[in-house]
Amino acid sequence: MKCKRCRKAAAAIELPSHHSAFCPECFFIFFKRQVREGIRKYRLLSPRDRVLVCVSGGKDSLVLWDVLMEMGYETEGLYIDLGIEGYSDRSREKVIDYAREKGKRPIIVELAKEGIPIPEAARCIRMQECAICGTVKRYFFNRVAAEGKFDVVATGHNLDDETARLLGNLIHWQRDHLSRQHPYLPEAGEGLVRKVKPLWRVSELETAAYGFLKGIDYVTEECPMSVHATSLVYKEALSLIEESMPGSRIVFYQGFLDEGNPLRREPGGEAAVAAPGPGPASGPEPGSEPAEAPALPETPKPCAVCGAPTYTETCSYCRLKELVRKRREERAKEATG
Amino acid sequence: MKCKRCRKAAAAIELPSHHSAFCPECFFIFFKRQVREGIRKYRLLSPRDRVLVCVSGGKDSLVLWDVLMEMGYETEGLYIDLGIEGYSDRSREKVIDYAREKGKRPIIVELAKEGIPIPEAARCIRMQECAICGTVKRYFFNRVAAEGKFDVVATGHNLDDETARLLGNLIHWQRDHLSRQHPYLPEAGEGLVRKVKPLWRVSELETAAYGFLKGIDYVTEECPMSVHATSLVYKEALSLIEESMPGSRIVFYQGFLDEGNPLRREPGGEAAVAAPGPGPASGPEPGSEPAEAPALPETPKPCAVCGAPTYTETCSYCRLKELVRKRREERAKEATG
Repeated sequence: MKCKRCRKAAAAIELPSHHSAFCPECFFIFFKRQVREGIRKYRLLSPRDRVLVCVSGGKDSLVLWDVLMEMGYETEGLYIDLGIEGYSDRSREKVIDYAREKGKRPIIVELAKEGIPIPEAARCIRMQECAICGTVKRYFFNRVAAEGKFDVVATGHNLDDETARLLGNLIHWQRDHLSRQHPYLPEAGEGLVRKVKPLWRVSELETAAYGFLKGIDYVTEECPMSVHATSLVYKEALSLIEESMPGSRIVFYQGFLDEGNPLRREPGGEAAVAAPGPGPASGPEPGSEPAEAPALPETPKPCAVCGAPTYTETCSYCRLKELVRKRREERAKEATG
Repeated sequence: MKCKRCRKAAAAIELPSHHSAFCPECFFIFFKRQVREGIRKYRLLSPRDRVLVCVSGGKDSLVLWDVLMEMGYETEGLYIDLGIEGYSDRSREKVIDYAREKGKRPIIVELAKEGIPIPEAARCIRMQECAICGTVKRYFFNRVAAEGKFDVVATGHNLDDETARLLGNLIHWQRDHLSRQHPYLPEAGEGLVRKVKPLWRVSELETAAYGFLKGIDYVTEECPMSVHATSLVYKEALSLIEESMPGSRIVFYQGFLDEGNPLRREPGGEAAVAAPGPGPASGPEPGSEPAEAPALPETPKPCAVCGAPTYTETCSYCRLKELVRKRREERAKEATG
């Protein structure tokens, strides 16, 4: 099959959801156009932003970093070492190697050094690994962004991730989660940095193809702690639908994000329109929509323990850490006693 | 495994979504309790109602008829012969046989005699078979109900049907369809009869088990025109989720129906609360919720051709029929000319 864009080279990837097929060079153009459109649509980034890119060593986050650098954004990579034997070492290596090629060094946070490696934390407290991991990661995203004076944190969530999450939220009608699900989450007070998902329009297949064709070396193994994650079931269910009706995922997610969707409004009835992003440097673009994202309930206050912004007395990270510390002490006593 | 209700007989069916397993006798009790709860919750039926049960010859509708008769409702069965070679004959036979056992004779409408058998109609006009079938069936539900002075039309849609439809409506964010999806659709003016789905709380597996254990003889083959129906893909996707997380379907549908769901409100912002059903004869039951269902846009007017209630000049059934008639004439001319 020939590339449907240049009509010369052989197609390397077929995309039924776009009724198209591309050679590598044309696919890169297509892919970047999709990311650019995703950024433009909700004004996720401004060219002046210092962007902290959260990289796990997997394809999505390394591709995100790659694309943002190619687009000329000022970026640094943040790698959080979860302390998972084998997996963490391998993914850390991929991040460092990739960064080195680009003449960069990632910022590295080691959860073992911070006293809260995920596997031990999961053994200590009754909470799903992925939930613990999410809480801890969010904490360090904000902390590192604040310390490094970054304007925004970018994560590599793709369309498959976002629609799987949307489906899960819809099946359980989690109104609060639904009202907060958006590629653009505004900053809230001091220390809760703006968070964006520039890959929200591209599928997992497209991200994987971009990484592969670009020769980006990433960890292909899934995190060993996420094998039973419910999100994988939602992904599989949506893959069935996408396969039978190509384009279903983007229709589903874009429809959800559209202004007319009452699930995108706050329960009170008012449309939750956050301050739009700073907008592109090239001035207001026609057709650019305001970054409609939910305002957070109130201004966060400093955590009584660590000073990080929180809506409760002590932030959830500090509460987690304290639980793990206590349980560790108890275990040590049990072992010696 | 023993029945988890009587703890004596061997379990004949295991229901992970209810953390249970039942022997046949206890399963009948469980099943009827589920249907009764589904009826009570939105006041679908009153004991004084004359109920027109739409039976296709498949398991769901025959089980519905069976359960409603056992519950003491006054029912008649309506069978619409779609004119599909082989399949229609076989399903008609099942309906007649079942009715005979109960000392009844179904009301039969033959689409071939009415000039609009589904296969020919589908060949004549560019419209999906299932869409044509739906329009034609709705027309006869109303017409037969009006002629026979029935209070309500009941169809055999089960939880799997309703959640598949819900998922499809959500993926495409079909707001109008979403606002009309409910086990209770109120009557609207003269001739648009109340429509209810008493099996909305029971799964396809449960309905099939009830039919099998009761010895109801039904057509097991699917309608040959529906093999590519998109609803089957949504069903399969939800089956994946249900299998991994039992109970997901009922959580999904009940959450959608709940009063707090803004998708159950009319686009205007007002909650669309229809006149509740007549309520059970035993007086108002505690915990009984009003039948929250969307009001239709305005009062229907008589169709210019057939007099049936419609929101347009000519009803969609008459328009379909006219299209088929014209195309048939053209074809006859082509064949002779």
